[in-house]
Formats: sequence, structure tokens, C-alpha cells
Amino acid sequence: MAWKSIGIFDSGVGGLTVLREIMHLLPQEDTLYFGDTARVPYGTKSPETVARYADEIASFLVKRDIKLLVVACNTASSVALPLLNSHFSIPVVGVIEPGARRAVQVTRSGKIGVIGTAGTIGSSAYTRAIKRLKPDAEVLTCACPLFVPLAEEGWTDNNVARLTAEIYLSGLKESPIDTLVLGCTHYPLLKKIIAEVMGPAVTLVDSAEETALTVKEILVERAELRPSSESGNHSYYVSDIPAGFVRVGGRFLGEKLGDVFQVSLEEDEVSP
Amino acid sequence: MAWKSIGIFDSGVGGLTVLREIMHLLPQEDTLYFGDTARVPYGTKSPETVARYADEIASFLVKRDIKLLVVACNTASSVALPLLNSHFSIPVVGVIEPGARRAVQVTRSGKIGVIGTAGTIGSSAYTRAIKRLKPDAEVLTCACPLFVPLAEEGWTDNNVARLTAEIYLSGLKESPIDTLVLGCTHYPLLKKIIAEVMGPAVTLVDSAEETALTVKEILVERAELRPSSESGNHSYYVSDIPAGFVRVGGRFLGEKLGDVFQVSLEEDEVSP
Repeated sequence: MAWKSIGIFDSGVGGLTVLREIMHLLPQEDTLYFGDTARVPYGTKSPETVARYADEIASFLVKRDIKLLVVACNTASSVALPLLNSHFSIPVVGVIEPGARRAVQVTRSGKIGVIGTAGTIGSSAYTRAIKRLKPDAEVLTCACPLFVPLAEEGWTDNNVARLTAEIYLSGLKESPIDTLVLGCTHYPLLKKIIAEVMGPAVTLVDSAEETALTVKEILVERAELRPSSESGNHSYYVSDIPAGFVRVGGRFLGEKLGDVFQVSLEEDEVSP
Repeated sequence: MAWKSIGIFDSGVGGLTVLREIMHLLPQEDTLYFGDTARVPYGTKSPETVARYADEIASFLVKRDIKLLVVACNTASSVALPLLNSHFSIPVVGVIEPGARRAVQVTRSGKIGVIGTAGTIGSSAYTRAIKRLKPDAEVLTCACPLFVPLAEEGWTDNNVARLTAEIYLSGLKESPIDTLVLGCTHYPLLKKIIAEVMGPAVTLVDSAEETALTVKEILVERAELRPSSESGNHSYYVSDIPAGFVRVGGRFLGEKLGDVFQVSLEEDEVSP
């Protein structure tokens, strides 16, 4: 079992920020990453549609014999985990619980802000997860739909990104929060501008690092960790042609991507 | 045959600007509109993927017995028309040819700008269509990927939209064009800001009106126009849940939408 891969998926490139932390913490592990680039973005779509897409991708990865599945997409984590847990017997790790745990560790005032896509914010998944860990927490949320296209366009440090952040975050900036959860895997690319707008009194939390820790804990507990002397291989699957994913993905992963294969989920065939 | 409907599709709400012109010019005609809201946007996806989606939607509409198909999406028009014409025997009308024809009628200098999604601009479909009609025309193009999410967010008249337009259009503004084609059905919503940035010497062209004229010409020629005493019915199908389409769609159509049904293209089942 230990020799199997870790499966990871997202609607597109955003989940590569989570993959990066897993590769950093567990360099001995093989990974299979799936980016649903033919149907990105998920954040503006309905819970039912996102859950169906997540289920199709999970089936694809489980057929490739993974030992654990990471849902490296906040929107899918917020709406599809119960379905995935009922359909598959391997452990399924989302990014909401780890993000909520980190936020609760970090906050001193107990007043926590959460930003994400319309889908994630609409689901209230972060609010529920934070309140399960800290029932007296106050959670303020705000959807920021344009942050994903801005990050994908590479406009992460210009005046449009700054102005957009000022508009979306104005309500949170006037609130008493001391912690802000970046509840979308694209948002770490906009971290600099979000930090500038929110000011030094607010700590930004992204769930990538904490999610990697959760993956490690589960594999240790199940004695499924590969020996640390090994060096992992990393494969990438996408549902649209790979060019765009390869071009943008490097910025998210922080290094050059390996081989990327296009796959049709309908026919479940891989073409190089 | 005349009693059949006109089928129209787009990746989402943008094509409603074309439907509006068809309803205005041909109020006697029934229409079936399909918005692929589960897979929107098309503009950042590959030609192969967009052509496959267009083919699936066309099959769906043709099964519902339409007499003519309007591809009310520039990205799909730029990459899928040959495939659709080979698969279906009814007339298929795209928005590129009408937009090019209008631009050639309007320009005096023969220097024409075209803006659109990355997919449309990458296809060079407008440049080819304009040069077929006017071989000595000079065509300058520019992709504006953030205009679609801005229009969908309803940010069509604020500083973010203005600044984004200034950045994208700076090259075209310094060029000698006298005509600018809005090569995406979302862009008419940003017309005011685009006109401000480009200044009064540049005429903006959108293909909706010219596309409606083309539809009328074809139906007249084939003697398939309904009597003008009739009053058409309008149905809407979407691939994601209807709420978002209904909310945003009214802005694009310029009036309240009728009944909207969700449909699964995979199973081809309609649910109200």
C-alpha cells in the first residue's frame, strides 16, 4: 500500500499550491495531480455540478490505484466531501478543515475572516468548520469572484489587482478580525496585495501547509508512508490541452512541471 | 418547417445579447436558447475542447427540431463552424462573419481593431473574415481575458473595469484604427467604458444586430419565416442550475427571462 501514489485534484492550477507543500513535506511520495482545465472554474458553479465533477475525477484517480485523495480545491472541498467519502474507501482529505484548524491556532481575538469563491462562501463550510473547533469564534466571510481570473491572468501585483482587493476587502478591513483565511487555492498568488490592503494587524492563513501535515499524519497512522530515502515521481493529468496548464502552472508550483497528459473523463483515455 | 424554432447557444449568458436582436427583428419566431453554464467560460479553453462542447450542444438543439442554429459565441464561432456544418444539415450561423461584414461597412481608413477572448483572438478568425471581404484591410487584434469575468460580476462601470480597459486597450488606442469590433458577446456590457477609453474617433461594432439580419435573410431565402402576425415563444436551457443564469441574464437580454430549464448533456434529460 505504501508504494501507491497520493492523488490530488483541483479545478485547474490552484491546487498546485497544495501539491507544492506535499512535495516539500513528503518528498519520498509519488503524486498524481488532476486539473479539470476543460471545466474550470468551479467557484461560480452550483454545488450539485461541482460535486458531480469531483466524483468523476475521484473515480479516475482511484482507478489509478492511489492510497489517499486530496481535494485541493476549496469549492469542491466545501460541497463534495460527503459524497466522495461515501463512494470511496481510501482517506479523502479536503482543504477546509486544515485551513480552519490553522486559523483557530493563529487567532487571538477569535474574530476570523474568510475569503473564497462564491461557491465556497455560499456553502458556509469554513464557518461550520471553525465553529466546530472554537464555538465562540466570530466568522466574517466575503466572496471575491474576480481573484481567480486575476491570478490566472498573472495580474497579481498591479493596480487592477490592488483596486479589486480594496473593493472586496473593504468590509473586512473595517471589521475587528485579526486572522484572514485565504479560502481558495488561487489566492496565495495575491497574498502580497491582500496583506497590503488588510495591514499588519491581520495574519493571513492558507491551508496548503496544514493540509500537507494532515496528509502526513494520516499516512503515518496507517503505516503507509514510503521510506524517506525514496524520491517521488510526479504526474499531471488535465482535461483540456496541456499548454495553458504548463504555462501558468509553474507559477503556482514554484518550479517546472513534469510531464502533463490530457485525459477525457467521459472516455477515460489518456493521450500524451 | 417555418413553424420550427431557431436554436441559439453560447457558453453562458453572453449570447443573450444576440438573442435580444433576433427577438427584436423577428418577434414572430420561437427560439430555444442553450447556455453552457456548467462549463463556462470557453474563451480560455482549447479549440478542440470548445468544438466538442459546441457539437454536443448542437446535437441537443437539433434533436429539439430547430430550423436554423445560431452560434452566439465568438469563441465557438471561431473554432467550431466547419465541424457543425459537417455534422448538421440545417443552416448554421456564427457571429464572426456578420461582425466582420459590419466592420468593413463602417471603416473609412480600412484599419480595424478586434478584441475578444484568448480563444477567439488566437484563432485569427476575424482577421481572415475581414480580409476575405476587404483584402487591403489592416487588422489589429488584442485579447482581453478579464472582460468576461468583469461583465459576469456586473463590474461594468467602475474603476476596476476602467483601469482594466485602459491596460488592455493601450496598444490599440495608440494605433490608427477607426473601427473596433467587440468580438465577444459579453463585451457590449462594457461598451460605455470601452468607448470612453478609445475616444470618439473610433466606432464600436458588435455583431448581434448584423447576426440577426443574417438569420432573417437565410429564413426569407428558404421561405421558412413565420407569418409576422405570430408572436414567438422563448425557452431557455442551461447546463448548471438556473439561478445564476436568471439573475445575470436579464442584464444581457434587456428584459426578464422566461422559463429556464436545467439539462444534463451527458444524459440529455431535462429537469424543470
